[in-house]
Amino acid sequence: MSDRLEVLRELMAAELSPASSQIAISQALEESHPSDLAFALSELDPEVASRYFSLLNNERAAEVLAELEEDTQRELISSLPVRRVANLLDELQPDDAADIYQQLPSSLRSGVLEGVEEKRAQQIRLLGAYEEESAGGIMTPQFVAVTAKETVASTLEAIRAINDLETDRVYIVDSDGRLLGVTSIQELLHQEQRRTPISTWMDSSVVSVHEDDDQEEVLRIASMYGLTTVPVVDDDERLVGIVTADDLDFVAEAEASEDMYRMAGTLAKNPTRASVPSRIFARLPMLLFTVVVGLSISWIVTALTPSDNGAPRNHPLRYLPIIIALAGNVAAVANAIVVRGLATGELEHGRLTGAFLGEFAVACGVGVIASVLTWLGITTLEADAIVLANSVSASLFLGTLVSASAGFATPAVFDRMGLDAALTGPFVIAMNDLAGTAVFVAVCSFALST
Amino acid sequence: MSDRLEVLRELMAAELSPASSQIAISQALEESHPSDLAFALSELDPEVASRYFSLLNNERAAEVLAELEEDTQRELISSLPVRRVANLLDELQPDDAADIYQQLPSSLRSGVLEGVEEKRAQQIRLLGAYEEESAGGIMTPQFVAVTAKETVASTLEAIRAINDLETDRVYIVDSDGRLLGVTSIQELLHQEQRRTPISTWMDSSVVSVHEDDDQEEVLRIASMYGLTTVPVVDDDERLVGIVTADDLDFVAEAEASEDMYRMAGTLAKNPTRASVPSRIFARLPMLLFTVVVGLSISWIVTALTPSDNGAPRNHPLRYLPIIIALAGNVAAVANAIVVRGLATGELEHGRLTGAFLGEFAVACGVGVIASVLTWLGITTLEADAIVLANSVSASLFLGTLVSASAGFATPAVFDRMGLDAALTGPFVIAMNDLAGTAVFVAVCSFALST
Repeated sequence: MSDRLEVLRELMAAELSPASSQIAISQALEESHPSDLAFALSELDPEVASRYFSLLNNERAAEVLAELEEDTQRELISSLPVRRVANLLDELQPDDAADIYQQLPSSLRSGVLEGVEEKRAQQIRLLGAYEEESAGGIMTPQFVAVTAKETVASTLEAIRAINDLETDRVYIVDSDGRLLGVTSIQELLHQEQRRTPISTWMDSSVVSVHEDDDQEEVLRIASMYGLTTVPVVDDDERLVGIVTADDLDFVAEAEASEDMYRMAGTLAKNPTRASVPSRIFARLPMLLFTVVVGLSISWIVTALTPSDNGAPRNHPLRYLPIIIALAGNVAAVANAIVVRGLATGELEHGRLTGAFLGEFAVACGVGVIASVLTWLGITTLEADAIVLANSVSASLFLGTLVSASAGFATPAVFDRMGLDAALTGPFVIAMNDLAGTAVFVAVCSFALST
Repeated sequence: MSDRLEVLRELMAAELSPASSQIAISQALEESHPSDLAFALSELDPEVASRYFSLLNNERAAEVLAELEEDTQRELISSLPVRRVANLLDELQPDDAADIYQQLPSSLRSGVLEGVEEKRAQQIRLLGAYEEESAGGIMTPQFVAVTAKETVASTLEAIRAINDLETDRVYIVDSDGRLLGVTSIQELLHQEQRRTPISTWMDSSVVSVHEDDDQEEVLRIASMYGLTTVPVVDDDERLVGIVTADDLDFVAEAEASEDMYRMAGTLAKNPTRASVPSRIFARLPMLLFTVVVGLSISWIVTALTPSDNGAPRNHPLRYLPIIIALAGNVAAVANAIVVRGLATGELEHGRLTGAFLGEFAVACGVGVIASVLTWLGITTLEADAIVLANSVSASLFLGTLVSASAGFATPAVFDRMGLDAALTGPFVIAMNDLAGTAVFVAVCSFALST
């Protein structure tokens, strides 16, 4: 951690006193880990970041670019001359190059592609034709495949020729390119019989995925068979690419996050990065459903309560569940964002305040929409219920804000204290039930008694 | 998928007609992927599984053993002679050997260790001294490290000597074994200058973790720096081991699952495998907290409701939140178990029914405890509230069972229909709010009006 912050600090110090710190700049740019540099650039002012980025040679710039989040990638690339972008695409791994090419504004694409080496341009076109979240969309066409009659010596020669191979797997194919088996570079080195064909000792129980398979299926197969590199085949069982460990890790993290966010109640894939309106929109299905269920609950209570006992059928408490449910949903999502963000490192380093303000803004939006819908629901369903509808809506809005704040702050505080943020989930929800009730009953007592 | 089921089917068929199917057995045992075979063995009757396992040669048996779940591992090993266990420990990767050794009953340990090669026995003792979930606990001491003045040629010679290296990373250390840099086997092969020292072109921005770091920290560093192999150093910065991709994947999956379960409200690490009593116990903190909060809510309602308005202070609806909250917790955990189980493959292949019965049993236990505590709470806090306490407790128990069933079944049905099971989270909770309310109001109407 200290590395990342140090790189950032040096670049910022250099920015403040440009004359004195040339050494610090070049040291930070040349010696730090590409991932630390990527972090520093993403934290700097975009203009400053792009100035530093322009100082990097192509190889290093490509390494840093591959480590950046998509939005910072886009920002940096938009500040570069077309020629530089083409050079970077040549330098990147083919799959990363294709991903970045996809992000270019369409007006630039053909110009950039003209500056790229012909082989790389073909790869980019080929990979661009796949669905983004399919095996084809995340694979790289850069792999070692030899036919079954090759020997250790000739295979090692083939490997020697390749630069930047992302895996130690060596695939064995038939004369049509159909996958037959797998071995590793180290296994090749270890073989004493350098002249026997590879087919005599390759591992022929090789598992592959189809190019159209969803990335989740690729991940499932990788985890089931303990693979760090997954071969991808086409309809004719021909090897067309490999999915490498770095992409698998990314898929695993993204899929787990997506599941957590969905389970909590938002369809946003990356809530800490998306815009507030799009995040509010991602909550609407859950919000609408909760409002309908909440209004149904009050109707059920009224319908099932016998009119002849002491308790009146129209007790305001029948609207307590809708408040608790909506506050609980808001708290659950805020909680999931912090817990997952801390676990994946997405929310490291003082990004918490910004993330909190974003989530609070989303909660305001969600609260307003839910309150208005609920108010309309109550006044439509019941006669002479304006005061009650006002009370419910006001409590709902207040409850939503309290819940979003508590749902966000509790895991952050737990984490700061060295406790597991994930433990806060059910506690936050229970506390919100309590707070929501207190707000509602207080508001009702005030509004209905005056 | 079809592979796994086919292997299982062939082994079962061979079991039913032993005379005719020797070919099928040996084919299935020799040709199928170790992971498929591990799956088949874990699904078979333990006695049958251990008979098939005894037919495997040491190398293959070790591969299969490494793929098995811990409980099946333990079962199989307990059926083996001490000598065979020692042979398997020699054959396994050192870290897997150490894990399996830890599972042996302590009466067997010294006997087994005597049969193991001296170097392996040392490794096992060394790895056994680390905390199970620390970097040291998941690392393997089998790696390639050369000093900085070695050349391509001599380093390739060192790699040639090693069997079963789990990574393509080659580490460069100083004369005291302190980590200086990293390169890869493929990079070595690619270098034209076979006689220059490695230090001239190694990557010196190498990131490592400390042997006592928690496995979550190892995962965080790996994901931050895009590492598939993480070097582990001791207090003196000396390289003592590496954490390889297979273990990192396992940690990532386990940590994400643990977070999901905790967020839903259970402390159980692997709810589908743990015993019912231990799973009930893992829910107690959340359950007690929810009961206390629920009773507090009813108290708040009573305290804040003015006695002079139309609504009586002791309306039964003030107990609705406790029922909804407990039912919601039970539904959330059942939901998390299915969503995560399907995502990780833990719940594949008709294991769903067994898992459902287990979760239902846990819900019964949780429901009984929550009902009793709530009953005691209500009768202690209020005078003449026996009928009300009965109604609340009965509704709570019924609601818990309905919620557990719905929380479990809904994502399973979604998945069967090809929809994303993770989407069901908030919908299940909302449906449970509704069902819980209906049950409670119906029970109250019946009990309080008679």
